Amino acid sequence: MMKLDFLTLFPEMFEGVLHSSILKKAQEKEAVEFRCVNFRDYSTNKHSSVDDYPYGGGAGMVLAPQPIFDAVDDLVSKSENKPRVILLCPQGERFTQRKAEELANEEHLIFICGHYEGYDERIREHIVTDEISIGDYVLTGGELGAMVIADSVVRLIPGVLGNTTSKIEDSFSTGLLEHPHYTRPAEFRGLKVPNVLLSGNHAHIEEWRTKQSFKRTLERRPDLLEDYTLNKKEEKWMQQIKDEMNQEN
Amino acid sequence: MMKLDFLTLFPEMFEGVLHSSILKKAQEKEAVEFRCVNFRDYSTNKHSSVDDYPYGGGAGMVLAPQPIFDAVDDLVSKSENKPRVILLCPQGERFTQRKAEELANEEHLIFICGHYEGYDERIREHIVTDEISIGDYVLTGGELGAMVIADSVVRLIPGVLGNTTSKIEDSFSTGLLEHPHYTRPAEFRGLKVPNVLLSGNHAHIEEWRTKQSFKRTLERRPDLLEDYTLNKKEEKWMQQIKDEMNQEN
Repeated sequence: MMKLDFLTLFPEMFEGVLHSSILKKAQEKEAVEFRCVNFRDYSTNKHSSVDDYPYGGGAGMVLAPQPIFDAVDDLVSKSENKPRVILLCPQGERFTQRKAEELANEEHLIFICGHYEGYDERIREHIVTDEISIGDYVLTGGELGAMVIADSVVRLIPGVLGNTTSKIEDSFSTGLLEHPHYTRPAEFRGLKVPNVLLSGNHAHIEEWRTKQSFKRTLERRPDLLEDYTLNKKEEKWMQQIKDEMNQEN
Repeated sequence: MMKLDFLTLFPEMFEGVLHSSILKKAQEKEAVEFRCVNFRDYSTNKHSSVDDYPYGGGAGMVLAPQPIFDAVDDLVSKSENKPRVILLCPQGERFTQRKAEELANEEHLIFICGHYEGYDERIREHIVTDEISIGDYVLTGGELGAMVIADSVVRLIPGVLGNTTSKIEDSFSTGLLEHPHYTRPAEFRGLKVPNVLLSGNHAHIEEWRTKQSFKRTLERRPDLLEDYTLNKKEEKWMQQIKDEMNQEN
């Protein structure tokens, strides 16, 4: 069973997410165990404070080393495995599907979620194994980042996703963006499903889908094609879709 | 007051996040209003279903157009403004701080959060104004992405953040990664705060911080420097930190 600990000043933030959908099911299947730990409980300060003014001046407060060091020490000492200690921060390595796959092999993840403040550098240097950013935008705290990573990792644990739900969204496992999907009705408010999808001709459907996937990737994320190797059939389709796109422009 | 509507099959997922921290405060200050709408309530199907098999075959289910079209129509018809309709999906434009700033100027945002499934292409083409991805990783649904966008946008609304909390984390507003922060104690478990920060010499502190910011950005995110213009003083410091880094290697 994978253990995920969230160190946070706002444990109540996690309630809805950890008790819905896949994360709920993963707990029911005993594939994972979640704990939310308020690191304020570890403060030895008489006011239970967790932050203080920055040395050298400046705006904002900085999370002090003591409560977080002691909280992580406590969780690590109770662990049978050597946990990965993940700090959510804008300076961290950009989170990717590859990183999710790497973390899905671990037994124990500890997430340190700051809120408003910066972290004392000694936390970063001495107890953290991975600094991760989920993207180039500013969030109020690390909590949502930790939930994002937890969701992407837990769904990769064998047995957590049923077969019917496991495949359709795997955009990043093929390395390309997905082709369009359509379902009933065939006509809705005058908007029609492409004829080829109603044809029952599987070779034509495969060709259409692959070309649409190429087209969307060329238009939106050409960088993804740099790491993608085309087979012979795909090379031909790629040329055709490029020709069509040139004619459109 | 900005309105944010979340169309989802799992409204309970939002509870903790919308009722904690900044998003809670923003509601108390009447800067924002959140609504979670279960689009299953709009299904005209006798089983209240919202998805169906994909035309052309394949694994997984696809969200049907009817419930989402009708839910969005209803919300739009009740709105005084023209809402932005945001679809969370891996094929979308990558979310950035610039996009957060753009959305912070809007009066009404509607988020469409799928779960497990793909979306019928007609939703994407005919009612969505923005397709957004929060990063290159696979999540179980759009809910966490919508919460991430909501947090990053709402904190930019004037008056939502207090002054003391507004500055320290703004990594992406300077365009570079932040310098290290330290707070008391000056020595913790033998780990010391750099002397310069205890010196009280503000010119030295500024130089140290700027150089540390350059160093961290050079090491971790050199791409950010492409858009950054150095002034004369910074040019000198950049050269010095590059020389130091070369000596270290």
